[in-house]
Amino acid sequence: MTLRLFDEHRPEPDSIGLMAGWGTFPVVVARALKAAGHTVSCVGLAGHADPILEKICDHYLPCPVARLGQHIRFLKRHDVRRATLAGKLFKDRLLLQKMGWLSLLPDFRTIRAFAPIYFFGRRNRNDDTLMNVVVDEFARDGIELAPATDFSPELLVKHGLLTRRKPSAAELADIRYGWQVAKEMGRIDIGQSVAVKGRVVVAVEAIEGTDSCIRRAGQLCPQGGFTVVKVAKPQQDMRFDVPTIGKLTIETMIAAGAKVLAIEAGKTILLDEPEVAALANKHGLSIISLHDSDALQDAA
Amino acid sequence: MTLRLFDEHRPEPDSIGLMAGWGTFPVVVARALKAAGHTVSCVGLAGHADPILEKICDHYLPCPVARLGQHIRFLKRHDVRRATLAGKLFKDRLLLQKMGWLSLLPDFRTIRAFAPIYFFGRRNRNDDTLMNVVVDEFARDGIELAPATDFSPELLVKHGLLTRRKPSAAELADIRYGWQVAKEMGRIDIGQSVAVKGRVVVAVEAIEGTDSCIRRAGQLCPQGGFTVVKVAKPQQDMRFDVPTIGKLTIETMIAAGAKVLAIEAGKTILLDEPEVAALANKHGLSIISLHDSDALQDAA
Repeated sequence: MTLRLFDEHRPEPDSIGLMAGWGTFPVVVARALKAAGHTVSCVGLAGHADPILEKICDHYLPCPVARLGQHIRFLKRHDVRRATLAGKLFKDRLLLQKMGWLSLLPDFRTIRAFAPIYFFGRRNRNDDTLMNVVVDEFARDGIELAPATDFSPELLVKHGLLTRRKPSAAELADIRYGWQVAKEMGRIDIGQSVAVKGRVVVAVEAIEGTDSCIRRAGQLCPQGGFTVVKVAKPQQDMRFDVPTIGKLTIETMIAAGAKVLAIEAGKTILLDEPEVAALANKHGLSIISLHDSDALQDAA
Repeated sequence: MTLRLFDEHRPEPDSIGLMAGWGTFPVVVARALKAAGHTVSCVGLAGHADPILEKICDHYLPCPVARLGQHIRFLKRHDVRRATLAGKLFKDRLLLQKMGWLSLLPDFRTIRAFAPIYFFGRRNRNDDTLMNVVVDEFARDGIELAPATDFSPELLVKHGLLTRRKPSAAELADIRYGWQVAKEMGRIDIGQSVAVKGRVVVAVEAIEGTDSCIRRAGQLCPQGGFTVVKVAKPQQDMRFDVPTIGKLTIETMIAAGAKVLAIEAGKTILLDEPEVAALANKHGLSIISLHDSDALQDAA
């Protein structure tokens, strides 16, 4: 008789690849994968990944970003047929150096994969365009890229108020307006966040990231009291760049004087929920998680 | 026999009102109005207007922004039936203080006019919304607000290359892409400018203004070489917030490392054109003025 390690509803343990970027999210995913009994082979992207991943994962390869060939060989060596991406990549550092990704000493496979975009292409170089190149390359070697939230769905934020304080009527009006604008920004693949005060859009995120966008809004609103709305794209691919918030987001908001955070239920990864809620409550912030439909109708 | 002061094509000299915000644009407009023989009654908005206007104009009232009643009484006293707005207002300073425009000590007429937006309204507080309130108030007293470019159409930039250097093929691709994004931003009334490099949107202007947007792009692109696209809204009302560039724009671009400026022909006010072109040529910048149709088709 063999010992049954997993209950009926759990998927069979498997060999899973993890492409790890910056922050605690890859660490959370690695722990969740291990807890589910999977073998985890992790590529820690140089300059981004937390070194603690080496201790959590079964196999670990620290590796520069632009080495797709190396990444894929490592995953194949460990029989990975499903992999997931987790954690932020600093796109400005990667793309806006002189020569773009060529400055990253790419391997042959990366050059071949990205050449049509960089040298011949007419397509833009926003997130989805770039990431789909990676997806296709993985697929050529039989590795399917799956959303990290398939493995740890409990990370997706539930619908409702997360804090003691509710947004006021004026703040709800700002949420409603900011939500529409943020969805437009997502539709044309510019960024995820906007800051609004009194139905004026104070700041729109592009490549600088949410935290910089919040800090800028704080400078432009010296009295504070603005609202941050961070949403998924209408065409959000849950495999990459899922909106993610955590303690750092709240700390940035407190320093900048923001008062309200509206996020999208079921499409936002919320890290360290108890700490996030406690910190927001301590500073009188309001965090609300909405569906697209209620944000656009009455934000209530 | 009376001396004919004006040729056949010139409109009759008239009493014109000038609401003057920040910068040299109101000064240029005041001089053009005087040169055309008009009597000019100018409201110099406090904290914004150049004091030299007092010397150029026939009548001058320095006045805080939120005193619509006072502005209108002054213009009526001088028989003004047509007025024009010129020069930037620092919207962040005006709106994002505690209590918004209430902090500006508004007169009764301003409060009555804006109250529906601030206290009861569901509308946003972007430029067009706010400015149309002013237009309506002027109209109640028989004063029509006309575009400044009706009085000095020579300020509108003509179609074509303004510099010795043409944009490269890669820069044209960035112009084309940035143009589409900037038009979207205008359509939802967020801002006029975007910065693009290698078909990545680096920065999007909201309330901070074009110069800040350019400086931010410079920080995010330490190697420089990005393209700035500044366009009119698809629904541009030529009475207010017409895209305006001048020497300061080029100086900001040089400091930030931007290499190309694309603007909209016939819908952009270009101040000091000879100096602007000379400065751009000296630093190897390219400035190109396009119609919406050519920017979206081939940017050539």
